[in-house]
Amino acid sequence: LKSSKLIYLNKTSELRSLDKSSCLLIYDLVLEKKFKSFLKSWPRRYGVESGESLKDVKHFPQHIIKILTLAEGVSTKNLHIVSFGGGSVGDFSGFVASVFKRGVELSNIPSTWLAAVDSAHGGKTALNVGPYKNQIGTFYPAQNIFLIKEVLLSQPKERDLEARGEVVKMALLNGQSLYKSLNRVSQPISSNEIWQNLPKLIAGKYTIVAQDPYETKNIRYLLNFGHTIGHVLELQLGLAHGVAVAYGLRFAIEFSRDKGILTELKWLEENLVDCNLPTLKELVLKLKKLKNIESLLAQDKKLSQNKKINFIYVKKPGRCFVKETSISELIHFMKVLKIYG
Amino acid sequence: LKSSKLIYLNKTSELRSLDKSSCLLIYDLVLEKKFKSFLKSWPRRYGVESGESLKDVKHFPQHIIKILTLAEGVSTKNLHIVSFGGGSVGDFSGFVASVFKRGVELSNIPSTWLAAVDSAHGGKTALNVGPYKNQIGTFYPAQNIFLIKEVLLSQPKERDLEARGEVVKMALLNGQSLYKSLNRVSQPISSNEIWQNLPKLIAGKYTIVAQDPYETKNIRYLLNFGHTIGHVLELQLGLAHGVAVAYGLRFAIEFSRDKGILTELKWLEENLVDCNLPTLKELVLKLKKLKNIESLLAQDKKLSQNKKINFIYVKKPGRCFVKETSISELIHFMKVLKIYG
Repeated sequence: LKSSKLIYLNKTSELRSLDKSSCLLIYDLVLEKKFKSFLKSWPRRYGVESGESLKDVKHFPQHIIKILTLAEGVSTKNLHIVSFGGGSVGDFSGFVASVFKRGVELSNIPSTWLAAVDSAHGGKTALNVGPYKNQIGTFYPAQNIFLIKEVLLSQPKERDLEARGEVVKMALLNGQSLYKSLNRVSQPISSNEIWQNLPKLIAGKYTIVAQDPYETKNIRYLLNFGHTIGHVLELQLGLAHGVAVAYGLRFAIEFSRDKGILTELKWLEENLVDCNLPTLKELVLKLKKLKNIESLLAQDKKLSQNKKINFIYVKKPGRCFVKETSISELIHFMKVLKIYG
Repeated sequence: LKSSKLIYLNKTSELRSLDKSSCLLIYDLVLEKKFKSFLKSWPRRYGVESGESLKDVKHFPQHIIKILTLAEGVSTKNLHIVSFGGGSVGDFSGFVASVFKRGVELSNIPSTWLAAVDSAHGGKTALNVGPYKNQIGTFYPAQNIFLIKEVLLSQPKERDLEARGEVVKMALLNGQSLYKSLNRVSQPISSNEIWQNLPKLIAGKYTIVAQDPYETKNIRYLLNFGHTIGHVLELQLGLAHGVAVAYGLRFAIEFSRDKGILTELKWLEENLVDCNLPTLKELVLKLKKLKNIESLLAQDKKLSQNKKINFIYVKKPGRCFVKETSISELIHFMKVLKIYG
């Protein structure tokens, strides 16, 4: 996998390294108000509504026709697609760049913590097929990833809260050094503090991706930590992705504890409180809202070959691992938690 | 670019190296009658109508939904897409394999000379955006390419005639050794003779692709020899691709001669007659059928940045080159040929 160049900037006005006349900016329409003049500086731009619907393959033909028209007059060799938005815009734009004229240059300007910490890095692009997420995609790393303080700090306050999930995930995956560094921050994590820790968080992701760039060895899969339950909560209760992952992490921690896998429990517990992860009680309340969680889990993984799913357990910070787990084991644990009745 | 394994077989029944239970066969419906029992041996199969419409991105979502359903129960790691058909089926299936679950295994069983000699090799996959051909695609070589005598010799007689275009193209691009070997064959080239020369023709293509796998150096572009005029004839007069290319080659030869570029004219001329390329007179008659060729040429290349196009000239067999040429120069030559009035 080609490596991406990370470029930290304070303001959008400092972004001068690209020849904008051969760029096509694909941006989240929600950014139009706050970044009016920055957007106007790109002669070719395509505003999209972010979210899972943007990634639905059924809309891909219409998008590509518009993008083809907008790109007219720029040679394939010079064309450079720039994504300006969160995870869905990045997944979509990256896929477009990877297949447009058999691949053109790509840069990414993440506008959310989620994208800045996680999805903008590592080259995964994706489209959905109806309700099945990320069934279509490529491995196509952006050449440049611009991390712009002005952009990331302009996010609504609730995004800081949402960032928690992926931030704690990365800390648990990467072990105590990242963990401790995050632990020095106040609670809940403020946007300035996430910005300060961004290089470390990003390095955490690249450490994992480098060991398994094309996800053939179950190492990169670790980045889905907390996503099994998280994804069901996200879809069924409409939770923000990061918040849903935070609940999913709490579930994974408690499940690992129940199995006798988790060690250093006390240390972890104290630190998880600091990170403001949902409590077990909060998790139980959320899970109670789901009807028929067994079929939701099975349905979510409909396309895998059997009733087992790859679940990610935590032994201690820096020691997570993937293990095939049957859905009935998860359900059994939920019964222990008295989620049912 | 990864290299493909070429496997020559006499009969479809000899194809035993793939585990068909994890394969999804995408095949041209036209092959259903002749290969009934072979098709039945693939538990997962998807029949398509071949042609440019198959490649239109607007149909991609429906196809992918069906393919997702058919692939259910096979793990991504094992899934293997097998293309059985001509150029359009191969372009389409290759694209699907390259983006489905971020890339699955791919094999190709070309059923036409065009695909067996040219399009199955070198990893180009493609979809069209309405009338604009191959605007979407990837570089994704098949792991295995099965060249099966029974399949290729079952083509209707007119396909042998159509093969002429790409066969002569490859001979002109690769020079006298391939040329002479072809020249020993009768006229018009019979299917048995194309089969005999297949390894040499294919090697010719790989020689060019190896020098410029991702088409960044104008070398791989040489494979479009004869396609500038050929493509217009194909679209406007509904000629078969190979026949249209044969006319395009005659045009390129005559244009190169007019410019004083072509040497070894007499030798070439004698040999071209042997290869049954259309004569200059036949070319003129065809071109006369086109209305407003200038706008057709401009329109065909709508998406390039100016009124110049990359035209491929021939100096002598084995010495072809690309040069930017204005559309007006081509038109001027047509006036010399008295195509207009």
